[in-house]
Amino acid sequence: MSEFRQNPITGRWVIIAPARASRPWHIDAPGNQAPAAETCPFCAGNEVMTPPEVWAQRDSNTEPNSPGWRVRVVTNKYPALEDTGEWSGKKDGFYPSMNGAGVHEVIIESPDHVVNMSALSREQFTAILHGYGARVRALKQDQRWRYWLIYKNNGERAGATLAHVHSQLVVLPFVPREARDEIAGARGHFQATGGCIYCDIIRRECEQRERLVFESERFVALCPYAARFGYETWILPKHHAPHFEQSAGLDIAALAESLRAVMVKLNGIVASAPFNYVIRSAPAEEPTEAYHWHMEILPQITRAAGFEWGTGVHMNSVAPEDAAQLLRNAPA
Amino acid sequence: MSEFRQNPITGRWVIIAPARASRPWHIDAPGNQAPAAETCPFCAGNEVMTPPEVWAQRDSNTEPNSPGWRVRVVTNKYPALEDTGEWSGKKDGFYPSMNGAGVHEVIIESPDHVVNMSALSREQFTAILHGYGARVRALKQDQRWRYWLIYKNNGERAGATLAHVHSQLVVLPFVPREARDEIAGARGHFQATGGCIYCDIIRRECEQRERLVFESERFVALCPYAARFGYETWILPKHHAPHFEQSAGLDIAALAESLRAVMVKLNGIVASAPFNYVIRSAPAEEPTEAYHWHMEILPQITRAAGFEWGTGVHMNSVAPEDAAQLLRNAPA
Repeated sequence: MSEFRQNPITGRWVIIAPARASRPWHIDAPGNQAPAAETCPFCAGNEVMTPPEVWAQRDSNTEPNSPGWRVRVVTNKYPALEDTGEWSGKKDGFYPSMNGAGVHEVIIESPDHVVNMSALSREQFTAILHGYGARVRALKQDQRWRYWLIYKNNGERAGATLAHVHSQLVVLPFVPREARDEIAGARGHFQATGGCIYCDIIRRECEQRERLVFESERFVALCPYAARFGYETWILPKHHAPHFEQSAGLDIAALAESLRAVMVKLNGIVASAPFNYVIRSAPAEEPTEAYHWHMEILPQITRAAGFEWGTGVHMNSVAPEDAAQLLRNAPA
Repeated sequence: MSEFRQNPITGRWVIIAPARASRPWHIDAPGNQAPAAETCPFCAGNEVMTPPEVWAQRDSNTEPNSPGWRVRVVTNKYPALEDTGEWSGKKDGFYPSMNGAGVHEVIIESPDHVVNMSALSREQFTAILHGYGARVRALKQDQRWRYWLIYKNNGERAGATLAHVHSQLVVLPFVPREARDEIAGARGHFQATGGCIYCDIIRRECEQRERLVFESERFVALCPYAARFGYETWILPKHHAPHFEQSAGLDIAALAESLRAVMVKLNGIVASAPFNYVIRSAPAEEPTEAYHWHMEILPQITRAAGFEWGTGVHMNSVAPEDAAQLLRNAPA
């Protein structure tokens, strides 16, 4: 089983997960929609190659773990964390650790061997986002957990080890550093101004427009002022809402359209651009007026390297104003 | 000119440096010691392709910016920061920024087109480390700066855009987050125990030995307890010292031997392993009893991806105990 360990100097947690070293490596040539490989565990017909499904959107007359699904969620076969009882911490001298309790699932985003997410239909995007919400809602019932992160690694440069479109859900027994910093900042802004900083950012960027990618009835896509990565794009609901997983069906359909538009635009600028994305939603105990859920799309065209690891400061060679202009003009 | 921008939510700084987008891309096939390319700006004879040198170790009868050097330091041709007057901050509503004032230099580590650092001689390692120290000492004279980071990107997966062995020095007008967290932790340990946490770690790891790679007269190489990356290795001086750049000649020679041993061992496990390293030395104003300079070697065999960007928590599939055992047994 894996283990959380805390750096005794910086306080930073890591997950030591040796079982993940035996993951298969199954990456096709970039941009290539390879034919459904017999060896791809995520292709329809190969359901036996994954752990049993925990959720699926499938035709009503089909059996679990057989073809007939559109989106399928399974426990990660090489989990970084496992849902095994309570979490517990210990300290060995000045070295703190916790058992690797948590949840690690994989959302398989197409029954077909698609490797570039932008090739999926709007209906498929809707089904995927619906699956994300369903899993987060289900796992939020469990009082042991504190943080839920949906994330995607698309392309080998973005950390994917399997090419077939998929994303992941990790549930943690604590609120991790990036989320803590973000929540503390949003809270500070709320206490100082009485407003939500994300609402203020949306208002300003829609007025100023230089970092705006597009605005639809329900969503805004923009390149953030202090973007860490070239072409980094955030999608935010215009209506203030702290929890992604409470989004209604109309919002999910509108988000699907916005997310697909960003993917298609990004692909138009850099073909088969590798990228990560994350969905940031409020932890359960968070006061709701200061937090605003959103998606962060993080292209990995250049890499974080020694400078970033050493300082925590990112060098980004694409000004977000330039990125937004290119993305605005790219066809959706 | 580039610009520092602060994320108004998390407080995280980034450097927006559009000029860096025009960098040339010159990466040879992995592991291949390609012949000195006429197009490589770092090869001896091509000195005119770089900005003028600011430091070099060279034969006494040779001219600056001509062949005859062993190690050569130049200003980065595509600098993330520039040494242009005072730094100054401003705030545009809730968006803080600073001009991109600082220093960005390149240390060219061999006159020959070597791409794998482990192929360099011990004498060459000594000359490189001597160059690092000379540049940091010179730039520490300047009262405008607060933090000095030597770092290396070796291999395309580790963020290098030029294959010829080199490293970089960035000087910042503030102490960045990773360094602040580390210094605060070291200070906290000192206040609580009266001891240096790095000295305590060295003592414990040398006794326990399961994460020790090797111990020499002056240095210790170990895999840290909460390693972020597979095969992450730290090299620490056994004698308590806060400032790398004040190391005496005997220490530099001993460090060269230790660093070369780690490089050779790492290469023995993963041929041409891509890696970053950083040298962590105390900022000028730091009280000296709590801080202990060291090198962190950060192999990039798997990648930071969506989970890491979303949480700040790293997943590492190589337990440091296993990494240390493999590194211990690998030939130096």
